[in-house]
Amino acid sequence: MTTTLPKTMKALFLNSYTGIDGLSLEERPIPVLKSGEVLVKVHASPINPSDTLFIHGEYGFKKPVPVTPGFEGAGVVVASGGGILANRLMGKSVLCANQAEGNGLWAEYFVATAFTAVPLQADIPLEQAATALVNPLSAWAMMGLAQKAKQRAIVHTGAAGALGKMLVRLEKRFGVKVINVVRRDEQIETLKALGASYVLNSNHPDFDAQLKGLCEKYNVTLAFESVTGELTGRVLSALQYGGRVRVYGTLSLENCQIRPSDLIFQKKSVDGFWMSDWSAERNLIQMFMAFNNIQKFLKDELQSTIYARYPLAQYREAITDYNANMSKGKVLFTP
Amino acid sequence: MTTTLPKTMKALFLNSYTGIDGLSLEERPIPVLKSGEVLVKVHASPINPSDTLFIHGEYGFKKPVPVTPGFEGAGVVVASGGGILANRLMGKSVLCANQAEGNGLWAEYFVATAFTAVPLQADIPLEQAATALVNPLSAWAMMGLAQKAKQRAIVHTGAAGALGKMLVRLEKRFGVKVINVVRRDEQIETLKALGASYVLNSNHPDFDAQLKGLCEKYNVTLAFESVTGELTGRVLSALQYGGRVRVYGTLSLENCQIRPSDLIFQKKSVDGFWMSDWSAERNLIQMFMAFNNIQKFLKDELQSTIYARYPLAQYREAITDYNANMSKGKVLFTP
Repeated sequence: MTTTLPKTMKALFLNSYTGIDGLSLEERPIPVLKSGEVLVKVHASPINPSDTLFIHGEYGFKKPVPVTPGFEGAGVVVASGGGILANRLMGKSVLCANQAEGNGLWAEYFVATAFTAVPLQADIPLEQAATALVNPLSAWAMMGLAQKAKQRAIVHTGAAGALGKMLVRLEKRFGVKVINVVRRDEQIETLKALGASYVLNSNHPDFDAQLKGLCEKYNVTLAFESVTGELTGRVLSALQYGGRVRVYGTLSLENCQIRPSDLIFQKKSVDGFWMSDWSAERNLIQMFMAFNNIQKFLKDELQSTIYARYPLAQYREAITDYNANMSKGKVLFTP
Repeated sequence: MTTTLPKTMKALFLNSYTGIDGLSLEERPIPVLKSGEVLVKVHASPINPSDTLFIHGEYGFKKPVPVTPGFEGAGVVVASGGGILANRLMGKSVLCANQAEGNGLWAEYFVATAFTAVPLQADIPLEQAATALVNPLSAWAMMGLAQKAKQRAIVHTGAAGALGKMLVRLEKRFGVKVINVVRRDEQIETLKALGASYVLNSNHPDFDAQLKGLCEKYNVTLAFESVTGELTGRVLSALQYGGRVRVYGTLSLENCQIRPSDLIFQKKSVDGFWMSDWSAERNLIQMFMAFNNIQKFLKDELQSTIYARYPLAQYREAITDYNANMSKGKVLFTP
């Protein structure tokens, strides 16, 4: 069961793990589908920090090149390779995930299975669905982990990005306050406007004392950290006894600097947080619940601001724009 | 029940947390004992890394000053404050521990309780007993934790010290190989002479590759790290997926430098190891077993090399000598 399809499609390909320079736009035949697979006409696919890490070869895995990047996106199913699950998806709007195998979503068409294409609930705009996985699911996961760790508040760094804004909007629903850490004063206003309880600038001279004070007030022992460099250690020092910093990004591109005495005498620890691990530790029902919840809130708490849209051919401008304006909103490829 | 005692005693006192300069030798009245307490005539008390941290105010706790430092030592019980347990210790050789409260063992006399003075088994030299807690118990604890974590081998840094030598000697008993990391070539020979299986110099250009190779060979995911600085991160990178570096010392006095990608994508973590926590997590029977085992091996696997002995009055020379020659053996106060 297929609609009329073109013979070829355009897709970005990574030819070497050298960032933007390793990319090229190619024209390729439309893939032949196997049973259980569907072809998704991609409507939008964002650039995420995980994508920039991936094209530099610094993500959690590498794929054989040439390969199409793009870990998430949304579109409409236009062909099925057969099989009940695949056939039922025909014509549906879906959000798609791509992980460790095969080509991603920076392309006109994406080959998905019933497990990597989730039908959208009514009224979800495709552009919001396109960014529904990486950030909203991360925000949802972090707040869940905070609740499970009985935190009245958590520290979040690099808080001016899309994920940070979602966490702020989720405060009330989860009953967990977010102590937002940003690096520029104008970001304080942005987050306050969204209703943030606390926003601190790590470049202010009284930052460490303020952060420590808030951690004492709410007995905070959990932080999600995406800046790295010396901020990792400063956050660890501010946390209460037994505190844990979970690093999930590396915006400064620096190593984490940790004070040994925090580790030895304060029972503190530093580890990572990666959505791939989080997903792998959850069963299908838990994931289904998470997806459902996320879709429900994609129009409010988990909404992403779309800052710019680019055709695939302008990948160089798109990625440069994204890197320069990360906290302004998502940059989408709209093939 | 008391033997004839002098009216006064000499003791080192820390008057401010400023290292050697904060110390002075004082003459004080012999303390009045309460029921359950005993007076120990100190035969020997070592200088440990924990003592140098303590006198600089960088240990896990501070005590009100002036206070006598010295976390461990050994001597003979010469007076009892009364009570069955205390009276039974009279005349016995004991090893003593001092922790978060009261005066320590850099003194002619030390006030202990039945819980902080452990009677020695026959034939244990007092000088070996004096250094029986901090290093031997740590070595015993680390090998136990390695076994519990099902490690066929562990990485140990700062391996040229007393603790490192003990770990090497314990290899066979615990069935856990130690991959020793040192910082100078002559330390390789010292450890090899003790029977070490693997000794690597972190200043050699092929260190990272060699360490990684050994970690692969034995599937190592646990390291005990006492150097800090960039070595913490290099060891973490060398460990297998899921690796954990436990920092227990800070010989370089630098912050730990950690690569974010190890944390995020490799499920690796960094935390601390402190004997106070280890002891607190064990019940009295487990501690009794550990003490018993340690005493059994104080003459062989857990033997300390005594490098120098000093009277209390020469505390300045003693501490300077210790800091300069840490890997040559223990420096003892012999009041």
